[in-house]
Amino acid sequence: MSNAQHSLDGLVEALRRLPGVGQKSAQRMAYHLLQHDRDGARQLSRALGQAADHILHCQRCHTFTETPVCSICLDETRDASLLCVLESPADQAALERTGSYRGYYFVLMGRVSPLDGIGAQDIGVAQLLERAADGKVEEVILATSFTAEGEATAHVLSQALKARGLRATRLARGVPVGSELEYVDLGTIAHALVDRR
Amino acid sequence: MSNAQHSLDGLVEALRRLPGVGQKSAQRMAYHLLQHDRDGARQLSRALGQAADHILHCQRCHTFTETPVCSICLDETRDASLLCVLESPADQAALERTGSYRGYYFVLMGRVSPLDGIGAQDIGVAQLLERAADGKVEEVILATSFTAEGEATAHVLSQALKARGLRATRLARGVPVGSELEYVDLGTIAHALVDRR
Repeated sequence: MSNAQHSLDGLVEALRRLPGVGQKSAQRMAYHLLQHDRDGARQLSRALGQAADHILHCQRCHTFTETPVCSICLDETRDASLLCVLESPADQAALERTGSYRGYYFVLMGRVSPLDGIGAQDIGVAQLLERAADGKVEEVILATSFTAEGEATAHVLSQALKARGLRATRLARGVPVGSELEYVDLGTIAHALVDRR
Repeated sequence: MSNAQHSLDGLVEALRRLPGVGQKSAQRMAYHLLQHDRDGARQLSRALGQAADHILHCQRCHTFTETPVCSICLDETRDASLLCVLESPADQAALERTGSYRGYYFVLMGRVSPLDGIGAQDIGVAQLLERAADGKVEEVILATSFTAEGEATAHVLSQALKARGLRATRLARGVPVGSELEYVDLGTIAHALVDRR
């Protein structure tokens, strides 16, 4: 287009860096913000700058935080004998929302993925082993996803933890709440049958 | 989540203002930017601020521009007898890319939509009539979408232009290039038959 719109092109290009946003979506977003929501554009601009500059990783659990140690790790009323290992802050937020866990966390910020060249050292196994060996942790709950990569991650961590004499458990596999057996996949039913209680 | 992450929550909330982005997508985008692409976050922050502050509407054709009058309107080599009316800068960009139009544009920045309370006065009919009455424009090409709203817009504009003695045409309706007749909808085939040449 001969109408050189440097700012607009720059905005579309920058929006394309968002995951799942292609050329068309980026254009639509840019036009929407400029035409109907300039306040939203400025708010997003500030929020991005603020987050990029101020969000750190917690020194103890590696989750996102604005302080050197996150508020959960600083909360001394929690159960220090439990340490739950997760793949991401999103998983941590989900577990927190259940309200049924009162221990501490360790967020891997990734998962073992040989195809992408991500090995055990890249997800902080050494830091996890150090964290779990604080003398208070009695059980490490491996709450990585039940995908191939999540399972591989749990396996690697479980081996490493057991080699140090630490107890590692895994979230229960089974039939999801509210589901009809007929529509549950066979692998899940088989696991639920083996792990029956 | 007890871990008060003001910047992170603010970022997720701001990302939700993008069209088509809900809570989950906004979270995924925020985590992705913070974990894997802080440069992208800063680049997007700058691009948004820059665009929100510097992009104006062209005084002649209303498209997005950084100068009072856009480069197309300033281009004196174009055919001043043709004025093409479009709904959005995206439509304008598409038409420019075809390379087959050398006249000027008028971008409505919207369309008539009674259900949303958008009438003819909201899309700048008065400005269009003024623009088209410059003594040079001989034909106004109505290139609004072939949707119900786009057709309504074209109808309203056509009436207003003809009342002023201006010639208004509409883009041809017909079978899209590269399509097999068998799979083209009946309304399109009917139009193509009536408008055969």
